[in-house]
Amino acid sequence: MTNTDFFIPRLAIVGVGLIGGSLALALRQAGAVGEVIGIGRGLANLEKALELGIVDEITQDVVAGTREADVVFLATPVCKLGEVAAAIIPSLKDGAVVTDGGSVKASVIAEIEPLLRPEVSFVPGHPIAGTEQSGAEAAFASLYRNRRCILTPTARTSGEALELVQRMWQTSGSEVVVMEAEKHDRILAAISHLPHMVAYSLVNAVGSYDRYEENILEYSAGGFRDFTRIASSDPSMWRDIALTNPEALIEMMERFECFFAELKEDVRSGKGERLYEFFQRSKELRDNIL
Amino acid sequence: MTNTDFFIPRLAIVGVGLIGGSLALALRQAGAVGEVIGIGRGLANLEKALELGIVDEITQDVVAGTREADVVFLATPVCKLGEVAAAIIPSLKDGAVVTDGGSVKASVIAEIEPLLRPEVSFVPGHPIAGTEQSGAEAAFASLYRNRRCILTPTARTSGEALELVQRMWQTSGSEVVVMEAEKHDRILAAISHLPHMVAYSLVNAVGSYDRYEENILEYSAGGFRDFTRIASSDPSMWRDIALTNPEALIEMMERFECFFAELKEDVRSGKGERLYEFFQRSKELRDNIL
Repeated sequence: MTNTDFFIPRLAIVGVGLIGGSLALALRQAGAVGEVIGIGRGLANLEKALELGIVDEITQDVVAGTREADVVFLATPVCKLGEVAAAIIPSLKDGAVVTDGGSVKASVIAEIEPLLRPEVSFVPGHPIAGTEQSGAEAAFASLYRNRRCILTPTARTSGEALELVQRMWQTSGSEVVVMEAEKHDRILAAISHLPHMVAYSLVNAVGSYDRYEENILEYSAGGFRDFTRIASSDPSMWRDIALTNPEALIEMMERFECFFAELKEDVRSGKGERLYEFFQRSKELRDNIL
Repeated sequence: MTNTDFFIPRLAIVGVGLIGGSLALALRQAGAVGEVIGIGRGLANLEKALELGIVDEITQDVVAGTREADVVFLATPVCKLGEVAAAIIPSLKDGAVVTDGGSVKASVIAEIEPLLRPEVSFVPGHPIAGTEQSGAEAAFASLYRNRRCILTPTARTSGEALELVQRMWQTSGSEVVVMEAEKHDRILAAISHLPHMVAYSLVNAVGSYDRYEENILEYSAGGFRDFTRIASSDPSMWRDIALTNPEALIEMMERFECFFAELKEDVRSGKGERLYEFFQRSKELRDNIL
């Protein structure tokens, strides 16, 4: 086991789905956690988490479930993080560390930091991992192995709390990167939020094309299906991300528009050499991330 | 075997890669072909095709290889189709049928039809299938099974030749759809050419983003990798497609730009309900093609 000297006696997980459940499983597997309390709104999912051995105790009462925790991991949808934090922070024990897994960071920090007491630390985080699956049943111990986890501490985050959360993610198999929240939000806008906006727009543009009064998506082959898989992602999750990271997202959308417009002009004027270079550059960039 | 009464005594395949080789294998498996001649420029690939039993004879001489053929399948890159047709048509035997597998149809027809003799028929076609692989080694007999193959006959295409090519593709497992070349080119622009332009632009826009002086693609997870897989496609093939189908492609690029711009405005003004509807509509369209 890695980090055998690292141990969280009592871990509370708010939202026991793919993200929260997989962290619990990874820490259990490493022998790095004592008791795990699973907290959520859906009783069926909590009971499943208990049955699968992801958590030791379950409750729908977020205040009672977190009161005695050493570490609280908030793995709810981004738009619920502030609400949950507001509910639990007054009753957390002194020295408790709160961390989260939200896909945007600046807006979450702006919501949660004003709620903190001096005795409670907050370490904003984002493990970059996931599948299209959700719920406790989708969780697995190796989800975070060799994936990056970004932590975005602020001036108010204590060094001790940061180190604890950093070791927690390292113990789960992640490579931890620490950066400013703004940088996180811009990088994620580029590599994740923009691609989703592009995929959603593409499927809408093609799927509603009715010049021939038939569903042309029926002609599509595997390439289109793979390319647009992320357009099947949860609409409310992506609404929340778009609402909470608009500035960085718009910057990237406009950047994409410039490249796309340049390409369109080269198609229009039949500039074969420029088209080849554009495609070749992209292929090289893409092949490098394999 | 399906269509046991269907038989091509002598089939010439110009370009024995994934597309040409898989057709040969499918027809062989159905017992629907006598001799298969493989023609190409690369000797190593031809020898591989012979070794794999895809073809019975090989030659680098496109005129000699096609002279006695009943059916000639042109599976070269789109930009080479006219050149090959010009070379072979004068010496084809009377009654020979030429067909192709090019991804665009109107421009191919415009190039090949003026070259025809009354004794030789041309049936423009496009099997919608493929993988990222290429070369004879990538060919497999079931590539076309349950895939659509579009044929775009013109006023000059004889009914007999059309029926022969139609049965050839049905025998290979395809569902054949007959339509106008212009309709083909617009549908393909929507479901295939546009997505490639979007993917290439996305990878270029994100991969060249250097605000943080580090390669942000290293932060990308599986979603980005899957989404951008088609940006690894052959740059010269996509240059040729963009050069030969510009009108339909630009129509679709502009259609996409409208949807993307609408989405950007909703992000900018924080219209949560509209964002949700946009993503939800896309998800429904996407889930329906599964």
